[in-house]
Amino acid sequence: MKAYLSGWESLCASSGAVRFIDINLRGIGQVMFQDNPLSGALFFSAIVWGSIAAGVPQVAICGAIAVVVATLTARVLRVDEAALRAGLYGFNGVLVGLALATFIAPGPLLWTYVALGAAVSVVTMSATANALKALGMPTLTFPFVLVTWLLLLAVYGFAGLGGDALPVEDVVVPYEPVASTGLSAGDFLQAALFSISQVFLKASVIASLLFLAGLAVNSLAAAIAAIGGAVLAVATAHLLGAESDLITGGLLGFSPVLTAVALGTVFHKPGVRVAAYAALGTIFTVIAQAAFNVALTPLALPALTGPFVLVTWLFLLPRQSFDRAETTEADDAR
Amino acid sequence: MKAYLSGWESLCASSGAVRFIDINLRGIGQVMFQDNPLSGALFFSAIVWGSIAAGVPQVAICGAIAVVVATLTARVLRVDEAALRAGLYGFNGVLVGLALATFIAPGPLLWTYVALGAAVSVVTMSATANALKALGMPTLTFPFVLVTWLLLLAVYGFAGLGGDALPVEDVVVPYEPVASTGLSAGDFLQAALFSISQVFLKASVIASLLFLAGLAVNSLAAAIAAIGGAVLAVATAHLLGAESDLITGGLLGFSPVLTAVALGTVFHKPGVRVAAYAALGTIFTVIAQAAFNVALTPLALPALTGPFVLVTWLFLLPRQSFDRAETTEADDAR
Amino acid sequence: MKAYLSGWESLCASSGAVRFIDINLRGIGQVMFQDNPLSGALFFSAIVWGSIAAGVPQVAICGAIAVVVATLTARVLRVDEAALRAGLYGFNGVLVGLALATFIAPGPLLWTYVALGAAVSVVTMSATANALKALGMPTLTFPFVLVTWLLLLAVYGFAGLGGDALPVEDVVVPYEPVASTGLSAGDFLQAALFSISQVFLKASVIASLLFLAGLAVNSLAAAIAAIGGAVLAVATAHLLGAESDLITGGLLGFSPVLTAVALGTVFHKPGVRVAAYAALGTIFTVIAQAAFNVALTPLALPALTGPFVLVTWLFLLPRQSFDRAETTEADDAR
Repeated sequence: MKAYLSGWESLCASSGAVRFIDINLRGIGQVMFQDNPLSGALFFSAIVWGSIAAGVPQVAICGAIAVVVATLTARVLRVDEAALRAGLYGFNGVLVGLALATFIAPGPLLWTYVALGAAVSVVTMSATANALKALGMPTLTFPFVLVTWLLLLAVYGFAGLGGDALPVEDVVVPYEPVASTGLSAGDFLQAALFSISQVFLKASVIASLLFLAGLAVNSLAAAIAAIGGAVLAVATAHLLGAESDLITGGLLGFSPVLTAVALGTVFHKPGVRVAAYAALGTIFTVIAQAAFNVALTPLALPALTGPFVLVTWLFLLPRQSFDRAETTEADDAR
Repeated sequence: MKAYLSGWESLCASSGAVRFIDINLRGIGQVMFQDNPLSGALFFSAIVWGSIAAGVPQVAICGAIAVVVATLTARVLRVDEAALRAGLYGFNGVLVGLALATFIAPGPLLWTYVALGAAVSVVTMSATANALKALGMPTLTFPFVLVTWLLLLAVYGFAGLGGDALPVEDVVVPYEPVASTGLSAGDFLQAALFSISQVFLKASVIASLLFLAGLAVNSLAAAIAAIGGAVLAVATAHLLGAESDLITGGLLGFSPVLTAVALGTVFHKPGVRVAAYAALGTIFTVIAQAAFNVALTPLALPALTGPFVLVTWLFLLPRQSFDRAETTEADDAR
Repeated sequence: MKAYLSGWESLCASSGAVRFIDINLRGIGQVMFQDNPLSGALFFSAIVWGSIAAGVPQVAICGAIAVVVATLTARVLRVDEAALRAGLYGFNGVLVGLALATFIAPGPLLWTYVALGAAVSVVTMSATANALKALGMPTLTFPFVLVTWLLLLAVYGFAGLGGDALPVEDVVVPYEPVASTGLSAGDFLQAALFSISQVFLKASVIASLLFLAGLAVNSLAAAIAAIGGAVLAVATAHLLGAESDLITGGLLGFSPVLTAVALGTVFHKPGVRVAAYAALGTIFTVIAQAAFNVALTPLALPALTGPFVLVTWLFLLPRQSFDRAETTEADDAR
């Protein structure tokens, strides 16, 4: 693996085009904290598979456009080159593209939105990184969440272009809880796998396995943390009596999966104490996900990875109690 | 009093069990900024009385469990020992326990929630303290408010366990103002006393007197500020035409009481200029309480002490205009 | 102009009364970043004209009362004299006065609110400036937005005094998009001009021209940026298919106008790169304005200049990519 990556790196150094591809792949990889073009390539293949399988190829296309626009914007704005090359200016963009294409019907509004949102995600990334620098906090996916929320909310104000995937007439709706039912072993497995693929807004077993492969090639610990986080999230949601459809769709688990990876492997050295701490954070992210779902119901707005951002910040800020992992500068910037 | 406390302190030094009780009592005392085990004991007796009188003994039990869980969590996370001994890692926990038991019916969800919420309140306390350190701002009860809001909102997503104390079917409801009526002298007195006891979510005259006693044994100024804040809040709410039932229930006064104590006695040296400033803050906290009540109505969420936290931060940040009180390190950390 | 202002300055130095008038005029001027008493006087004449033309003279009166109360409060609180003299403690006050008088019917509640809101706007200004100092960020109109939102929300809780201009029975209402129609050249011109006058909550062509004159006497670049921002905002909103009545009323353009002036002329040296960056920020402010409108609909709350504050902060924080304009200390404090 190391020889492979070192060969790729010399290719990047010799060709601007390869470097550009490398940056975009790393941008996709950084959605799950992996600064590795192979992880990014595996993640992207999962996105393509999941989009085609669900009959929405425009989702993968929008994700690709968005990461490219984000990288170009970052170049124009002359951001820090090391952070750019680590993919830190791309991961919010790709998520903006995937989310907009998931929640808005194809049409002129969608394409305008994807380009605009990807460009603004770079500004917001830089703003968030600067705002958090003194606290030593990573931006996580906050720029993606903020920019996408604003763009989705605004859809209701722009009736002229077809944003008809969102339930326009129901912006203020009561929350209606649905009783949970039993969860078979098969349901449980699907729920855990979908919790991983929903990080990229996909509900697909094969995509989930490709995402796990992308994690494993760069960090076995991250792959294990993702699986552990998914299982813990599904179990927690089920024991608390959450609605079964949300659980089996992976919709209560994707934020906890990110929390588990971030707290368990990225920002702390893996270990027993860290695992227990990450588990507490993962469980509380399930609570936060349910809370965000309820709080955003009146606005018909998806929670996205907002719960992950909030809980992970809360659990990272009390650094004094833990030994920090040796993180690269890029990780720090993030 | 000093001799008494010094004897107690040597008892604490000689016995881990007594020290543990001391930390938990100070944790309860710190809800109203009193770093004194006797204040904590009087506050706890008020909580017990108020809970039994209202026929909800589980509220006092949950408060006790929560403060103990918070203290144990703080030990495991190895927080700063001085801050821990001053009770600064307990006051958010006890409030989480009281609030959850007040708004959620007894059952498995409640007990799970109390333990989880108390543990996370410690993490959130540490996170908030670190985030605010550079600004020199105290955390106030922000960790309590944030954690409790998330847990209460999530109840609607967890239909499987009995959280039937919250109006599940009414998460999105219109706000219906009710006209105010006259306020007799008796009503006024009750409103002021309940404004003090509602800091601990209690509506009881006897509890209120016990809370005042707990304040007075440690700080006569704090007791006077609490009474003054309560009277000013009730008068303001009545003159502005607020709904009478909210006023007489103390529900527009508990945040202003905390603002009055904090601005008038804890973070500034008492004096005429400070009293005028604290009065302005107290009046504006009544406005903020009404605003939060309206804003949170669609989510059927109680404002808790959110208005106190917001207004007190706003009024503490412009420090340059005032001489700061000589505060202990513990106060600073808070 | 310079001789004129220098003569005025010696008049201020010799008379406390003239100085007081000067501070209040600069306070009005600072609503659009102009530290110039003549700009303030022209802005105020526009406010008076717009208020009388719309049959609501109390709006201009409340604006005047509010800026005077804010200046007096700032004196009592002994804020930094240089910042006070630059009008930085007045611009939030005048906006609080204008907004409250626009949304609340005349009566005892209104007058109480204006005095209270103006006083608290000074505390909030100082708090915000201190909180943002380390980030080097200006407060913009955040204090105005926060204080006014709290006061307006609280109106629903204070039924006793006549706040009947707000739709009391409709605090929770569904958002109903209205289809856009064609926009004639005349509509377009009116939309652009109203976008400028709505910065001060006025819909008047003559007021708009007076505002532009007030900008031009101090900064031609600011006047050009305001016109450019207004045209860009109206075009963006129309192309995205926003409701025509909102556009022609200037209600989607006033926040973008402020963003254009701030990003294009106040905090960066004007130039091509800066103009392109400001244009992106202006376009995204239109999105944010529509998003805020939708998000605040359940609370029947106006967005005010919240979208301008959010987007301008996001676009100012990534300073490393741009040369900063030579700003005065007063501008920095703001």
